[in-house]
Parts: sequence; C-alpha cells; structure tokens
Amino acid sequence: MPVRRREVSPPPPHLFPPDEWRIVEQRYSRAQGGTAETLFSLGNGYLGLRGSPDEGRPALLAGTFVNGFHETWPILHAEPAYALADTGQTIINVPDASVLRLYFDDEPLYLPTARTPEYLRVLDMRAGVLTRDLVWSSGSGKHVRVRSTRLVSLEERHVMAFRFEVTALDHPASVVVSSQVLNRQDSARTGNGTGNDPRLAKVLAHRVLACQDREQDGLRMLLGYRASNSGMTLGVGVDHVIDCESPYRSSVTLDDDLGELVLTVDAEVGVPITITKYATYHTSRSTPTGEMVARCARTLDRAVSSRFDRLVSKQREHLDRFWDRADVRVDTERTPVQKQQAVRWNLYQLAQATWCAHGAGVPAKGLTSQAYDGHYFWDSEIYVLPFLAYTQPRLARNLLRFRYSMLEGARERAWQLSQRGALFPWRTINGQEASANYQAGTAQFHINADIAFAMRRYTEIRGDDRFTAEITAEVLVETARFWEDLGFYGSDGRFHIHGVTGPDEYTTVVNDNTYTNLMARENLRSAASTVRWLQAERPDDHAALVHTVHLEEGELETWEAAAAAMYVPYDAQRGIHPQDDAFLDHEVWDLEGTPPDKFPLLLHFHPLVIYRFQVIKQADIVLAMFLLGEEFSPEQKRRNFEYYDLLTTGDSSLSASVQSIVAAEVGMQEEALEYFRHALFMDLGNVSGNTTDGVHIASAAGVWAALVFGFGGVRDHEGSLSLTPRLPAEWRSLDFSVRFHDRQLRVHLSHDEEQYLLDEGEPLEVTIRGEPRLLSPGQKVALVPPG
Amino acid sequence: MPVRRREVSPPPPHLFPPDEWRIVEQRYSRAQGGTAETLFSLGNGYLGLRGSPDEGRPALLAGTFVNGFHETWPILHAEPAYALADTGQTIINVPDASVLRLYFDDEPLYLPTARTPEYLRVLDMRAGVLTRDLVWSSGSGKHVRVRSTRLVSLEERHVMAFRFEVTALDHPASVVVSSQVLNRQDSARTGNGTGNDPRLAKVLAHRVLACQDREQDGLRMLLGYRASNSGMTLGVGVDHVIDCESPYRSSVTLDDDLGELVLTVDAEVGVPITITKYATYHTSRSTPTGEMVARCARTLDRAVSSRFDRLVSKQREHLDRFWDRADVRVDTERTPVQKQQAVRWNLYQLAQATWCAHGAGVPAKGLTSQAYDGHYFWDSEIYVLPFLAYTQPRLARNLLRFRYSMLEGARERAWQLSQRGALFPWRTINGQEASANYQAGTAQFHINADIAFAMRRYTEIRGDDRFTAEITAEVLVETARFWEDLGFYGSDGRFHIHGVTGPDEYTTVVNDNTYTNLMARENLRSAASTVRWLQAERPDDHAALVHTVHLEEGELETWEAAAAAMYVPYDAQRGIHPQDDAFLDHEVWDLEGTPPDKFPLLLHFHPLVIYRFQVIKQADIVLAMFLLGEEFSPEQKRRNFEYYDLLTTGDSSLSASVQSIVAAEVGMQEEALEYFRHALFMDLGNVSGNTTDGVHIASAAGVWAALVFGFGGVRDHEGSLSLTPRLPAEWRSLDFSVRFHDRQLRVHLSHDEEQYLLDEGEPLEVTIRGEPRLLSPGQKVALVPPG
Repeated sequence: MPVRRREVSPPPPHLFPPDEWRIVEQRYSRAQGGTAETLFSLGNGYLGLRGSPDEGRPALLAGTFVNGFHETWPILHAEPAYALADTGQTIINVPDASVLRLYFDDEPLYLPTARTPEYLRVLDMRAGVLTRDLVWSSGSGKHVRVRSTRLVSLEERHVMAFRFEVTALDHPASVVVSSQVLNRQDSARTGNGTGNDPRLAKVLAHRVLACQDREQDGLRMLLGYRASNSGMTLGVGVDHVIDCESPYRSSVTLDDDLGELVLTVDAEVGVPITITKYATYHTSRSTPTGEMVARCARTLDRAVSSRFDRLVSKQREHLDRFWDRADVRVDTERTPVQKQQAVRWNLYQLAQATWCAHGAGVPAKGLTSQAYDGHYFWDSEIYVLPFLAYTQPRLARNLLRFRYSMLEGARERAWQLSQRGALFPWRTINGQEASANYQAGTAQFHINADIAFAMRRYTEIRGDDRFTAEITAEVLVETARFWEDLGFYGSDGRFHIHGVTGPDEYTTVVNDNTYTNLMARENLRSAASTVRWLQAERPDDHAALVHTVHLEEGELETWEAAAAAMYVPYDAQRGIHPQDDAFLDHEVWDLEGTPPDKFPLLLHFHPLVIYRFQVIKQADIVLAMFLLGEEFSPEQKRRNFEYYDLLTTGDSSLSASVQSIVAAEVGMQEEALEYFRHALFMDLGNVSGNTTDGVHIASAAGVWAALVFGFGGVRDHEGSLSLTPRLPAEWRSLDFSVRFHDRQLRVHLSHDEEQYLLDEGEPLEVTIRGEPRLLSPGQKVALVPPG
Repeated sequence: MPVRRREVSPPPPHLFPPDEWRIVEQRYSRAQGGTAETLFSLGNGYLGLRGSPDEGRPALLAGTFVNGFHETWPILHAEPAYALADTGQTIINVPDASVLRLYFDDEPLYLPTARTPEYLRVLDMRAGVLTRDLVWSSGSGKHVRVRSTRLVSLEERHVMAFRFEVTALDHPASVVVSSQVLNRQDSARTGNGTGNDPRLAKVLAHRVLACQDREQDGLRMLLGYRASNSGMTLGVGVDHVIDCESPYRSSVTLDDDLGELVLTVDAEVGVPITITKYATYHTSRSTPTGEMVARCARTLDRAVSSRFDRLVSKQREHLDRFWDRADVRVDTERTPVQKQQAVRWNLYQLAQATWCAHGAGVPAKGLTSQAYDGHYFWDSEIYVLPFLAYTQPRLARNLLRFRYSMLEGARERAWQLSQRGALFPWRTINGQEASANYQAGTAQFHINADIAFAMRRYTEIRGDDRFTAEITAEVLVETARFWEDLGFYGSDGRFHIHGVTGPDEYTTVVNDNTYTNLMARENLRSAASTVRWLQAERPDDHAALVHTVHLEEGELETWEAAAAAMYVPYDAQRGIHPQDDAFLDHEVWDLEGTPPDKFPLLLHFHPLVIYRFQVIKQADIVLAMFLLGEEFSPEQKRRNFEYYDLLTTGDSSLSASVQSIVAAEVGMQEEALEYFRHALFMDLGNVSGNTTDGVHIASAAGVWAALVFGFGGVRDHEGSLSLTPRLPAEWRSLDFSVRFHDRQLRVHLSHDEEQYLLDEGEPLEVTIRGEPRLLSPGQKVALVPPG
C-alpha cells in the first residue's frame, strides 16, 4: 500500500486542538500561514474568501473569488497543432473587501511581530462564522482587545460581512482603523511563471481588471471593473456602520485599486469601537459595469438594513439544514474527537463550495484558491455530485443543469475533433475546452460518460423523471453518438475505443482503457434505454427530443450494438482487468525503490518516463469497480484491488477515498482505514504538502463517500438502495443519513446494533446485506450485525 | 498509392524552361515570388542567401542565414511538465548584404510594376552563380540595362559577392544605386504567430540583434551584433569597388540597422556603371563583436584584392569537383531535359547545403529559410549522410564529427530523462533538445540509433577505422547503454521498448515500434562488436575508450543479450511487420474518402484523431526495409510495402524517396517512378505547396538515393558494395558514380548494356546482381542486363 510511504498526520494539536464543531487556532504561526489561509477559508459556493488575517497581511495568497468570474487569454502552444484548446481561462482574484487594518498609537497590528498574550481564531462549523479574538500588547505597553467576526452569507449569496471591535484595555490611545477594498492584481505567487507544477494557476502578465466605475456615498464605496480579455464585468461594494461612543472622525478615499475608510478615534479605556462592514460582489458575462455597481448598491441597502446579527443567525439556520442531512458522526476508540472534527471540516468545505453555486460549477479547489485556474472538472460529477444527490438533491440538480448549459459548446468541440455528438471539455469555466495538455486533458473523453452517468445517477437517487426528459435524455443522446462515432469494430468483431486517456493520468492516450470502455458502454446503454422509455412513457417529450437532436432512424440500434459488442480488456490468466490493452505489458515501476522526495512523480520525472511503466496516479479500475460494481465479480474486485493497489502512488488527491471504499468492500479493512485517514487529513494534515493551494474538494467529498459508501456500504446500482455496512472493528459507531426518492433514511451502526429509520414520506424498500427490507416512516428497524 | 491524389507537376515551362544545367526564369512573376526566392537561393553550407530580387523587394521572405547562428528563448509550455525542453533555438535572419537598389531619374526599379522588355534570371549550376539580365523601360521611356551576378563563395566560406552593372541604353540619365546592408529584424511573415503549422519558425517578439560596433572606412562598412539571449556574436562587412567612367559621387551612411552606399552618376549612353560588392559574415558563440568585425575586415581585404573574377572561376572549380562525383545523368523517353534539370537542381541544393558546413550540421531546409527554426534533425544522418559518404566522404566525416560534439549534452539529456547513456536531441542547433512537442519530438529516441547507424555506415563505406576508434565507438557505447536501460524484459522473455515514437509522426508514443526496435538492436549489436573489435585490433584505443566511458565488466554482454532478445513485432497471419505493437489493431483511415484539401492531415485534424488510426505520414517499416534490408525476406518486403503504401499520405517530404527505393526493390516499377517523380519535383513543382518555406533538403538527398539505391540498386549491407540495377523500362539510360573505400566507381546503365568502371586505386570486389565481380582500375566491365 504505497501511500503509507507518505506520512499522514492530523493537524498539529498545539495549533489546532481537537474540537467536534470548531477549528481553533490557538496561536498565530507564520509557518502555517498558507495552510491556515486555506483551512480558514469561507465561502458559499458563489463567493469565496481565503482565511488571511483581518489586516490583509501577511498573506501567502490573499484571495477573494467569485465562482465563474474569470479572465481569458490565448493559449500559446510551444508547438501548435490543429484544434488544440486555444483559450485559457483563469478565475480572477477579485478585489479584497476583507482588509481591516488597525493602528494603535500609530503602531500597526502585524501578527508576525505583535505580542499577543491572548489569541484565538475559531472557525465555527455550526455557526458558519470565523471569529478572531486577541489581546495585543503594543510596543508602548498598552493593551488592546481586537475581536472580529466574518462570514460569507449562506442566505444572501452576494454578501460578506465583517464585524471588527477594538477596545483599549488599560490606557487611552489613538486608534486608527483602515477599512479597505483592495484590488491586488497580483497572483504571481501561486502561479506558473517558471515552475513546473501544472496544477497551479496561470500567471497573467497583463492587467486583468480595468476599473470603469467609482462611486462613493458616505461610508459606502462602489467599484465597477471589466476583465480585459473575457469582457466579464464585476461590481464590488462595501458599506460601513460605525458604532463608537468615543470621539471619532472618518474619511473615505476611493481610487481605481483602493477604496479606504479611515476611522480615527480617541479611544477611551473599556469603550469598544465597532465597525461593521458589508461587502458585496456582482458579476456578469457582459452587462455594463454601471449596472453591476447599481446591483451592489441595492444589495448593500438590503444588507445594512437587515443588520449583521440577522446574517449571523441565518448562517446557523442554513447550517442546521445542512448538518441535518449531511452530518456523519463517528465514534472511534482512538482520537474520536479529532476524527469527528476532521470529518466535519471536510463536509463543511462541501457546504461552502456548493450551497449557493447555482448557475456555476464546483471548481477543483472550491473557492479557496486559484489553483487549477478555478476550473470545473469531472470531480463535480463523479466526486461531489453523489454527496449532493444524497443530501441536497436540489443542489445536485443545479450542478447538472449548469453542465447541461455547456452542451452546445460540447457539440462544437466534438465537431472540431471530427466527431459526431458532443464532447464536454475536460476542464473549463465558460464551457470551452481549456486543457492545454491534450494527453492528460482533452483525451480524457471519459468526461462524457461521467456526466451521463452522474445525470442518470441523480435521477435514480431522486426519482426525477422530469429532469430525465428535459435534460438527461438529450445529453445521453449526444454523448452516445460521440462514443459510437469514436469507437470502431475491430477484426475481432468487438467494439474498440482507441486513443483515449482514462482517469489515471500516469498513462495517457491508450487503446481500450477499461474504465472508459465500461463507462461508454453504460452511456450507450442508458441512452438507448432512456430514449425507449421516453417514447413509451412520455411521447411528447420523446417527440421534442427527436426534433431537438435530429434523432435518426436506427440510431438507438447502433448504440445498443456498440454496447453489446464493447470490448472490455480482461486477463483471464491473472483474473484481473488490465487498465488498458497494453498496461500489463509495461515494466512495473519500482515504487519501493523510489525515494519519498520523488513524489508526486509528475514533478520529478518526464512524462515519457512515467507513461512507460505500470504506475498509477489514481486507479481507474478501482474507480470503475465502485461506480459499476455490478460489472465485476467479488473475486475480480479483490484481485483487481490487490493488483492495482501495489501500483498506486496516490499522487492524485482523488485516489485515496475510492481506494478506501473498494478496500472496505473487498474486506481489506486495514487498507480501507488507512486510505480513509489519508483522505480525511488530506488538507487538515497537509498530506500532499499543498494545502496552501486550496481545499481538495473532491477529496472532501470522498471522505463522505468513504464513510457512507465504504463503511456504510451504501450502493444504488440499478436505481435501488442497498446497504452492506462494514463498521471497522476499532470504531464504536457510525451515524449517517441519506436522502433517497425524497425520503430521509437515518442509519446508526454499532457493533451491537444497527438502526435504520425512515424520517418521512412513503415506505421505502431497501436491501440490507442482501435482504430486502421495507422501511416505514417513523418505525426504526433494528438489526443485530453479523459476526 | 495515395500520393497520386496530390498533383505532381514539374515547374511551369513558361517560367522555367527545361535546361540541363540551368534554372532559367524567363519573366518576373510576383505570384511565383516566394517559390522563386527558394529556388534561386544560393549557399555554401555556411552562408545562405534566398533568391529575392537585387532590389531586396518585393520579397515574401528576404533571408540571409549563417549556419548555426541562432537566438534562444525560453519555451513556454502551455502546461508545464518535468524535463520538457526549455530552451528554444531559432536560426537568425541576419542583416541582408544583397540589396542593390536602382533609381533611374529618381524612379525606383521595382519588378512588379516595371516594364522589362528583356528579363532573364539564371541559376547556373555548373558555374555556381546567379545572374539577372534585364532591360527596363522606365516611366519616362528611357531604357536601361541592368545586369547582376551574385555568388556565395564555395572557396571562401565567409564571402558573398555581387556585381551590379547599369547601362543607359538610349538616353543619358541620372542613375542612383543604393547598396545596402540591411538588418530587417522581422521574421513575422513565415513564423508561428497565430497559425497552426508547426513546421514554421518561431516568431521572436524581442529585438534579436543588438548592434555593438559600427565602423566605416571609405566604401567599406562593418557592423557587429550580439544576439540578445544566446549571446552569439556576428560580424557583417561589405566593401565596394566602383568602376564607372561617367562622373559620379558616392556617400556612405552607417546606422545600427542600415549601412548604405549611395552612388550618384550622370550616366552617359552606353557607358556601363559597375559596382562590385563583397560581403562577409563571421559568427561566434561568444567572442566579442569587435573581434568579429576585425575578422570581417581581414576577409574583405582578401576578397577585394583577389577580385570578383577569381571568385567566379573558383566556383566553377569547386563545382567541377562536385559534379564529377555527384552528378547523375538520366535519359528518359519523355521530357529527358526537364528530368535532368530537376535531378541536378536537387543535387545542387545538396552542394549548397553542405560544401562548407564543417563545424555545423545540415538544417532541414539547408540555409534557404527559417522553417523548422534552422534545426538539425535525423535528416542529416539518414538522408543527407549517404549522399555525402558516397560522393564527398570528407563532408560526411565533418557532419558526424559535429554530431559527436553534442555527445556531452546528450549524456546530460539522458540523465534528465532518468536514463543511462546518452540521448541525442530530436531537434537542435546548439546540442540542447529543442522539441517543444515531446510526443512527436523527444520521444523519437530512434535518433540515437540513426546516428549510430550513420557513423557505422560511413566507416563501412569509407573504411575509416580511425574514425571508428575515435568517435563511433564512444557514441555506440553511450547509445547502446541508453537502449539497454530504456527497454526491459517482458514476461515473454523478450526485450521490449515502450513509449517511443518512430519516424512516422502520425502515431506517437507507442510500444515496440518495429523501426525503433530493429534499429536499437543494430545499435546494441554494433556497440558490442565494435568494442570487441577495438579490444582485439586496437588495444590502446580500447583502453582509452574504457576509461572515457567507464565501461563496466559485463556491459557488452547485457547489450548482446538485449539485442538477442529484442522483440520485433510480426503478424504471422498477414505476413507483415506491424508498425508497432498496436498499430494493426487501429481503425484504418479512409484515405480515399479524405478530400484533397484536408492534406496534410496534421493541419486539419486534431492529433488525437490522427493517432487513433492506421494512417502514416512516412512509412517506418518501409524505411527499415531500406536501411536494414537484410532483416526482411523479399516476400516480407513486398507484403509490407503493399500494406503500408496504402496507408501512407506522403504528408512528410521524407516519405516519397524511400517509398520509391523500396518500390523499385520489390519490383513495383510504376510506383517507384511515381514516387521518384514526387520527390524530384517536391520543390521545383511545389508539390507540398510550401516551397516558399525553403528547400526540402532530405528530399533532395532522397532524389539521389532513389536514383542510386532505387534504380541503381546500390546497397552496402554488411560493409560490402552490391548493385542490383533496375533501370525503368521507359528510361534509356542512367549514369551515376559512387565512392567506396576511396575508389570511384562509375556506372552506366542502359537496357542494352551495363558498364562498371573503377577510376583509380586498388581493385574492388563488388556484387552485381548477386554475382561477385572484381573490378580493376581503368578496366571497364560491361554486362548485358537480364531480360
């Protein structure tokens, strides 16, 4: 199990002590700076704000992001070729409205050098706010208490709010607070200037945001910007409410890149100075900035009038709804609080990445950094979607609707690649393919099947026939067409798909990638069966579909034929599925002999070296065994897992959770726990060493998946719900909840008893350990687990 | 035979009439401008000058090149990865010393609009000069004769010379001649700004040449430049001799980018004005420009004193030597003169690309354009080298010595790619890998075997044991090490080489490419046998080698073992060699159904589309059958040829000549002639539509190869010379000459008689149609050909 070679540690307890609902930073540590910025990020799926200090410095990467708000740039290929992706897209680090700088007798508060006898920063995952409470002993020996609270509203997706409270504790003093909205225009520190880490964001050399509007009204500042190349527009607004019983004066200055309110107070001992700051962001593809600014003004009117406290209490209401469905409670023999904390932190990231994301996707890092350029990948459909479908199906539907909005572009892209149907972009913000590296990018045609799979899975989990009729069917048709056209019948009469890259990016452009072929077969089958179902059950929708996609006579049959003839590589001698047709012929990489500092391999070996070997970034076959479990026998699963596990580096953060799930299924409990731990502490323990570059959202979703699908044993193959729980021996209990066909099923697992409770609605038939059980609402079913 | 789909026409006879020794342009045609610039290029292997008009305009690409004088630039990969090539190299278009502008009564001579009742431009391939003779009827109705002669000296490689003669024919007039040295600093027109043609040169955005020295002395101008990034230095000098019996005055101005001599003459009728201009170029990797300028001054002193006429007569002497060994005479039933002319034009290009190239390589386009960035590829070793080895072995040795100078860099590159031994760059000027596209570039590891092969072949053709001991042995050892380390023993016990690209760039990064495996086997065998031979025959050299390369005990045996176990794909059922292990499994591209305007495929299809199919840019297997003919049975050759010929687009200019050779060998005479015609008119007939972008040097060498190896049937397998002539039925005769072991063999083939004559030296045993024959000097052997 190669990942063991990588140290997996929980976060340092002296910095972040175990706490079930909170992440607590007990003292400021500059060394942890970049990591803490990520860990204390706030977001609502539309806005994201990294956890840099209130002062805005020091910051490794101070970042504020609006989902989908991006700049474009021409991709200059070192060597051009036909139809390579030509337009790069990078999420923009928008002006930072969080900055609140404090000067005490003209001495600035600067954490790395400040003496802070008290310091506590707390992310409260139930309250949805980040607070900081510190006492600063200034150079002159005076003490001052500084309390701040910040939130990114889950109720008003365009709103962030900040409360900043300063109290001189022992001596009167001159207090100055500079509240800023600051357009940094610098993303160089995490970008790809000269480095060779392809995961980081593109550094843009030009000035991205051009200021078009500036308005000031009292303590309110409004700015309008236009992104130079993409033409997208942005409005930013901040407003302030000052509550101060000491004498003060304020002044506001507004510049293209800096709006500043300076508050000067003759602070009296024990009299708090409170500044409440509301910030808002509005973006558009092309609406003039003046209109964006006007929207900001209206949002600020509403935010200021509804008050900070209401925004705080609404956070709790939304999170109560979130946790009611999403919470997973673990009780383990060792370090139970730490594990529970980590589980919740991961789930909380999912809330922050998705709650208000309608009309947009879920970037690989959520809204916690610019890494991966803020692009949407298959992570959304294969990793995040199941969590949403089982906890907040409305959000799942929004995500898929957004993907559907890219279908027209996907048709165009397929045409560019000389194929029929549609090809969704491997990575994108605006729907255009943005993968500059076609081998490990565009060639991952499996994205098509992943999307088709996710749409069908969503409808099966929710029972949303209307969605099928309106959206899924059209996507299935166009993706099936793509596969049927891409593949061909070989001389063996089987249907082959050549020249593709599977999810494992350590082998690219191969023939008959097993994952791809299996998923394409599923895609082809689903397309045919869905169209037939529409024809039988919803003839009007069927007629509309036929018209929309110009469905031709006999097309369904070609899909069914291709699916029936689909070649699936299998090595009968070893009883395993080759990752692709040539994979097992390759030399095996000597993982044991590879020094730890040579990982991830992609940063230390030329692609041609990596591609030549049996070595894996994330195991395709293992993922296929999870998604399409019914296609594999239990013996195949075990053999496949054992074979590929030894080749897997875990260099992909998408790897560990799936390894855990399948390890649990094949009864390799130790491995399942080890991989789970790997995913659980991916960011909190900085397992990959790059937490600074943002939250690994797919891994966070994978934590939920490992708990519910792995240890909880939940499956939904063929549209019915089944559970085969496998509570680890060293765990005392596991509680989770899944929503299926609009009914909430709550599960409690312990070694003595398993409880299944349907909250509401019609009775539901589920299969528990192979036995069908009819669950009726309100009637708890208790079972004694075997053995 | 897919290339037939492409129209192959000789050059338009109204522009370029047939002429055995000359290319004659009968009238100026702007439409032919770019093509003519290439066709009338002059060069000596060190300097190259495109055939733009004396006036320097209009020009699609006015170009002057010094072999190896290049700028570097950081390769910005759209997505970075470890150890990708990071330094681009592009040959520099140096200041143009050819410009001689004429103003007649202040009216400039500008060919597109000038009325020229007489016009003749002639490239004389025996004389080695380009002349232009025209009568211009100026706007005022006066007539003037303008005669010019230019040459790039084959005697003095740093020298070009121009003679420009103006005579007022019917009226006195004011004549102004502006003789310039002009630094254009623009290469934009043929470069890769936004296009998707990977074959063109990189457009550099920065100012490449910084002027460091300017000196003027009388009619002499000297300039020194430094290339901004590479730091290479350049000296350019021009000097003038004016011969004019009419009253004249001259003035010289010298600027960073323009040196100009303006000659103003009150021209009298019938009194010629003659300007002789000498130009020189010196370059260095780093010597200060002042020193370069001083070298230019010395060269100019010598050139001016030795006089223009001597340079002209020396041209003829050198070319007499060239043609004595290189000329091939063809006499065919149809259009014999046109064919002879085209044959000579191709051979002449080889002279111009190689004659003074010592210390440098042969760029893909010679010195006739910036396309392919002026890089050296395997073309040198596999296409150009045989011609040189058989006609001017001294030049062959120089070329290989230059390659050897890159060995240290090749060791470094192998290390970057985690391999032992050495890996020569796929494309380079300065020895560093410059292929920005690793799939169709770096992955062509066969370059290693090609170089090893060429070195051994050269020594076998020449019998140069010293070269073997000093150079070949070391290269063989390092390349053999590379192969032994790159490949591995599969579970079948065979030695496999995965993840490579063969010569056919329409399939990349494959497993067990047959060409590569065969050539690697040859490389491994040669390395072992050469070291053993050294040990036995030249123990001192052996000891030195062991020391230099740290040869270890048992290394030879590992090479021999790998060679013995080398896996060579073979499809027993079809009786053909698959291009690679998976090639025959691919879908077959529908070449018949591909419209002509979709060729070359690389400009019209995404790489992923092309790679997925059985479709070929140039046929690997066919090339292997030529280079390693003894590894294939006659039946295999025929079957392989027939199979791959149908899949071959001929999108590579390297393809046709090899197809022709092998077609001739397998008895497909019609195809052999058709492919020969394709290569013959590649540039003169603008077959690929890009003659503008320079001469296809490898194809020019291929013309010689098709004649000598194809129709002449010359082979040198295993170091002995054999001939199996196959004179096409419609040809009357074919005469050629080859040099072997320092003896000149002259061959005359006709359908009635074949004559073999050894010019000089010791008797030589050759094999003619399978029969050994001892040829004695001066004794012509005449045979009656069979059938």
